[in-house]
Amino acid sequence: MMDIDAVSDEYFMREAIKEAEKAQTLNEVPIGAVLVLNGEIISRAHNLRECEQNAVAHAELLAIDKACREQGTWRLEEATLYVTLEPCPMCAGAIILSRVKRVVYGASDPKAGCAGTLMNLLEDERFNHQCEVAKGILEEECGSMISHFFRGIRERKKLEKKQRQAYELERQTNIDIE
Amino acid sequence: MMDIDAVSDEYFMREAIKEAEKAQTLNEVPIGAVLVLNGEIISRAHNLRECEQNAVAHAELLAIDKACREQGTWRLEEATLYVTLEPCPMCAGAIILSRVKRVVYGASDPKAGCAGTLMNLLEDERFNHQCEVAKGILEEECGSMISHFFRGIRERKKLEKKQRQAYELERQTNIDIE
Repeated sequence: MMDIDAVSDEYFMREAIKEAEKAQTLNEVPIGAVLVLNGEIISRAHNLRECEQNAVAHAELLAIDKACREQGTWRLEEATLYVTLEPCPMCAGAIILSRVKRVVYGASDPKAGCAGTLMNLLEDERFNHQCEVAKGILEEECGSMISHFFRGIRERKKLEKKQRQAYELERQTNIDIE
Repeated sequence: MMDIDAVSDEYFMREAIKEAEKAQTLNEVPIGAVLVLNGEIISRAHNLRECEQNAVAHAELLAIDKACREQGTWRLEEATLYVTLEPCPMCAGAIILSRVKRVVYGASDPKAGCAGTLMNLLEDERFNHQCEVAKGILEEECGSMISHFFRGIRERKKLEKKQRQAYELERQTNIDIE
């Protein structure tokens, strides 16, 4: 038997991945999010930190901000947030504040993940709202986009260093010949 | 001898309180924040959750968002944030992400405070940035604004309840007489 929930989780995570791809095109860390209410996407966003030079321009926060503006309410009580990477403290906080019902994320974040990895803000009973959390949906795909992105940066840096060294060597050789 | 730091902390906290007063005028929970760089206020904001019906419209997040837009950078590495109430998880996260150097807050928040009360996200060494934290600056003034605000709400609700009961009683009495 087909698990309807799992099918729709994968469907919406693919939409979040499409957002992450938009970030990648802009040379941003590829992270994307969509907010879903009654089976429909009510907002979508991707990481724009570098393009907008704004610390708060994370996919989840932008998606929540947009949804509040468009729905005209700060209460997103029946919404599910799909995001390719585990939320950081800021985004986990925004999720709690907007009372999102359920969060589905792809890859875990060992550096800043606050939905189970470093801590679990979303299910901490001391806050006045808790979310359901599902993790690991299309994890491989979500995670490899990000690691591929950082590998690309490292390789680019390595190449630039080699080019600089080759240039220095050539310059030095020319000086010695002169 | 006068402690210059303490004097300027009080000065800027009074500016944050002015922001909180603006929130109060709008019937918002009175919380205000200012961001200071090189002795100058670079952005100021107050809680606007109800007016804007936006879960992310907290004083600190709005101040950081504005500062990034106006400075054209997501790095606020030399800035100090003054806020009348201890930051929640979202705002503590935004502070870490924008690499604010120092956070000064007035009243502690037993319900959601994440700069020492429920937890201390700002000094958690697992994240890639830590802030200096100073608390209790004009604490009494900052805290009493908020408790006074909530007391007002409770009293208004009690009065409304009494008025409804009196109205119901009068209506019932009229029916009995008829």
